[in-house]
Amino acid sequence: MSLENIRVVLVRPMYGGNIGSVCRAMKNMGLSKLVLVAPQASVDWAEARMMAVNARDILDARVEASDLASAVADCVQVAGTTGREGVYRLHSETPRSWAPTFLASAHSAPVAVIFGAEDSGLSNEEVALCTQILRIPSSPDYPSLNLSQAVLVCCYELFLAGGGYEPPVEKHPEASHAHRERMLAMWESMLHDVGFFEPEKADHMMMAVRRIFSRGRLSEADVQILMGVARQVGWATTKREPDT
Amino acid sequence: MSLENIRVVLVRPMYGGNIGSVCRAMKNMGLSKLVLVAPQASVDWAEARMMAVNARDILDARVEASDLASAVADCVQVAGTTGREGVYRLHSETPRSWAPTFLASAHSAPVAVIFGAEDSGLSNEEVALCTQILRIPSSPDYPSLNLSQAVLVCCYELFLAGGGYEPPVEKHPEASHAHRERMLAMWESMLHDVGFFEPEKADHMMMAVRRIFSRGRLSEADVQILMGVARQVGWATTKREPDT
Repeated sequence: MSLENIRVVLVRPMYGGNIGSVCRAMKNMGLSKLVLVAPQASVDWAEARMMAVNARDILDARVEASDLASAVADCVQVAGTTGREGVYRLHSETPRSWAPTFLASAHSAPVAVIFGAEDSGLSNEEVALCTQILRIPSSPDYPSLNLSQAVLVCCYELFLAGGGYEPPVEKHPEASHAHRERMLAMWESMLHDVGFFEPEKADHMMMAVRRIFSRGRLSEADVQILMGVARQVGWATTKREPDT
Repeated sequence: MSLENIRVVLVRPMYGGNIGSVCRAMKNMGLSKLVLVAPQASVDWAEARMMAVNARDILDARVEASDLASAVADCVQVAGTTGREGVYRLHSETPRSWAPTFLASAHSAPVAVIFGAEDSGLSNEEVALCTQILRIPSSPDYPSLNLSQAVLVCCYELFLAGGGYEPPVEKHPEASHAHRERMLAMWESMLHDVGFFEPEKADHMMMAVRRIFSRGRLSEADVQILMGVARQVGWATTKREPDT
């Protein structure tokens, strides 16, 4: 599985809360390998555990390295993230355009995606070690994302590019054309009976009703419910007729 | 501008850190309107300010409402997020498939995207008020995202769907075919001169060299650098010949 070959590398991280949030974001998106390069003395490890919540296994299994080069020595692709522009950072890609090719490399060998320290990002020397530069699309009014948010965007794009996500399926099957038409015929008849249609506008109004019921998919259960409404209105009006 | 019509609504949020991180994520993605429905007594507002960093303007401009219905009364679309499955939540969309149509509504009227409390999410009564249900793709091993991370994914998809992001442009123009070919001719000649080619394999190796230089775009500046390398090698070998 490609996602297992992906290493998330945090360079000189400062805050335990961010490290923990990174663990949670990784596990949310099916990644598991965390490497910390020279975490700073300011890191509060208790806070990291708290923010990791159910991803403490990733925090506990982290690897630490003293420098970036040794953290990625065996990686065939090294993607660095940057929020800054600059002459060495112009050839950047978006996470969305980058994810499929990065994942293709991860199919057969280790790869790494690198995030710099909260205050300073990656240095030019660290950018030089990268085979790709990523820049997360963001507003010019405030382009700098929180570290764990930046990690999430990259992991989310990798998870989606991996195609592993299956959206939940509607358990009720979609109604057939004939089933929908039987329901619409019942509604047309019912709307006639209750006097909803002005005679010369009946066709026009029925088209509008059809349009309302065609805005999205209708399941067999939905059609049964709408048939039940028409049937019940018919029953109620018949029953009441003697009173009016 | 469509993004200005989008309201981010947090229902009964518990943690100030999350509220602040939501403000930052919103501003990163060009959104500005935050509504809090019945924030809980546990909220630490100082922590919210700290985590908002440069998005304190969004925190300060927040609107508070006592219930969800009044928070979204004027909204033409109300998208609710859920991490749970259930009979009322099966017809969910992904943020990516949802964003373009939601944004189209936001072009002319207010719309809202709703996030439930950290511990319990949205209730069935709140889900009933929504016109769409969103589910963020995530790993079955740990599907539940942190609140501010869930907000970021939705805002990121809206920002990208809005098409407002322009990737940084390479300042050096791309090299023309003829420019690249002049460089490759200089390299071929230089590789001959230094004895790199075995005679019967020269064409084959030159194809490999061409392939290396064709993996990505080459700018005019890149081609100038490669020409300079070939020229300098020629100079160095000529100069040294008398010595060897």
